[in-house]
Amino acid sequence: MSEFSLIERYFRQCGTGRADVVLGVGDDAAIVDISSGKLVVCADTLVEGVHFPAGADAADIGYKSLAVNLSDFAAMGASPKWATLALTMTQENDHWLQGFSQGFCALAADTGIALVGGDTTRGPLTVSVQLIGESGAGWLTRSGALAEQRIYVSGSLGDAALGLQCLQKEYVPGSEDHDYLLSRLARPQPRLALGAALLPWASAAIDISDGLVSDLGHLLQASDVGAVIDVRKLPLSPAYQRYLEHGGNRDFALSFGDDYELCFTAPAGHHQQILALAADMKLTISAIGWTTQDTGLRLDGEHGAEYASPVCGYRHF
Amino acid sequence: MSEFSLIERYFRQCGTGRADVVLGVGDDAAIVDISSGKLVVCADTLVEGVHFPAGADAADIGYKSLAVNLSDFAAMGASPKWATLALTMTQENDHWLQGFSQGFCALAADTGIALVGGDTTRGPLTVSVQLIGESGAGWLTRSGALAEQRIYVSGSLGDAALGLQCLQKEYVPGSEDHDYLLSRLARPQPRLALGAALLPWASAAIDISDGLVSDLGHLLQASDVGAVIDVRKLPLSPAYQRYLEHGGNRDFALSFGDDYELCFTAPAGHHQQILALAADMKLTISAIGWTTQDTGLRLDGEHGAEYASPVCGYRHF
Repeated sequence: MSEFSLIERYFRQCGTGRADVVLGVGDDAAIVDISSGKLVVCADTLVEGVHFPAGADAADIGYKSLAVNLSDFAAMGASPKWATLALTMTQENDHWLQGFSQGFCALAADTGIALVGGDTTRGPLTVSVQLIGESGAGWLTRSGALAEQRIYVSGSLGDAALGLQCLQKEYVPGSEDHDYLLSRLARPQPRLALGAALLPWASAAIDISDGLVSDLGHLLQASDVGAVIDVRKLPLSPAYQRYLEHGGNRDFALSFGDDYELCFTAPAGHHQQILALAADMKLTISAIGWTTQDTGLRLDGEHGAEYASPVCGYRHF
Repeated sequence: MSEFSLIERYFRQCGTGRADVVLGVGDDAAIVDISSGKLVVCADTLVEGVHFPAGADAADIGYKSLAVNLSDFAAMGASPKWATLALTMTQENDHWLQGFSQGFCALAADTGIALVGGDTTRGPLTVSVQLIGESGAGWLTRSGALAEQRIYVSGSLGDAALGLQCLQKEYVPGSEDHDYLLSRLARPQPRLALGAALLPWASAAIDISDGLVSDLGHLLQASDVGAVIDVRKLPLSPAYQRYLEHGGNRDFALSFGDDYELCFTAPAGHHQQILALAADMKLTISAIGWTTQDTGLRLDGEHGAEYASPVCGYRHF
């Protein structure tokens, strides 16, 4: 079962039905009403051997544990402010902690986050970060898409999955592509500025942590619409294009996660503004398809049909 | 190294030095300034095989994962409102999740908490809960104690440790004591009402998660005072007293954690108010000693000297 439905099933009605919870379990982050504004809250966990290999660089783990939470905030168009860290480790290792905290704290400083608390415990290496912030002018949810709206993604897709292939020696590119792909896996860039800038234009948004098909699927389900996407329009990096030239396919770009790009929808009338925004931010934003009244996700384009067979993003269980 | 100094060492200066963090890493929970009030945040993790034995009742784990966080709020005199849950499990197990969520959600409902988000991941069983709330009239820290103030503890001490002895068949009491001690281990009562009621009277407070000597030690260190406590005045339950009669000693009450009672200090002039408050709440509150100008913790009373040798609370590493 996916993370989504698991939380949905067991915890949607959990605890008190507080009137001040504006958006609770089921989206990228929660919104709670405070007397003079909206508080935004999220939590994400990385587990050794699941989300990163044993022996991964400690600074990369520190960086990524915060980055994946920042990515949830980006998908909400919200401003992160405070974090707590729950760190479980098999033993105290000074060298490892130096590296971990350096990676975590550098990204925290870059993004204006203050770590305000946490817990360290003994056990198998697990890093859980909770992020709290505020939403200003509004927020983006997964559920705001209407039919006949354009679907966009930021940056390029599939690089992180290809990076993992490099790490596992399943794919051996040139050294420049190798370094690029590994950095895309280890150091994803949370799209905070993009998320905030999209507030007036996008109708729904999600970050791609589990794969485009899976995460767009969540957005479509929450919005009760379907979609057609053109596989030829998936944004691919030069490194990924060289992988295609060496006989690779678009599976990683379609169905594997860890890219932490944003996928969002917007009314057709906002297309020029979104292109202008991309130019301003010097960030690639690609229109990859359209939402539809009919539910379900259809893949069009060259070899599109072959992807119409069940392809799934990363499944948590 | 203890959890406290670990966080202290690596994360005190982490990220941005935000002006709106009123109280950051180093106390039971954090206080952040919001436009119209103070937000309170904390996070605590339970790991299988460390904080609870493999095969422990799922509902008890769910209950306790929230209770230990509520206990941090009790120690701050703060009002918890929203929680996030990061749950790492080896596999999806419907029966286990039913039990877990029942234990968690029942306590959430009892205490007015809304679960607003979280993450489920695959890996060794680890439960990390983050709690967010507000402080009204003020808050209690670990650092407010002055010399010549009384030291108090709520409830009784050592029962949870004795419960663990029962579980491990190291101690076999009568069946009534057995049930009582196990429930003290599995279902600690966070002292939220007491914490809130102490706001006008107490000078410093901490919850006893790692053991009286260890946690009082944190309070003394943060307040830069010492203390003398009278071992004869430690509040012991009838079940613990029967353990003494069978040759047991006060080690568990002094130095082992998991009781989640409050330990607090107050000026001598507030003694009557604190006794009245205890009577009102029908909760035992015991004066066990005094803070001193000289730093360090001295144990007095029958066999007190024997405890003056290094005794430590639960150490995280």
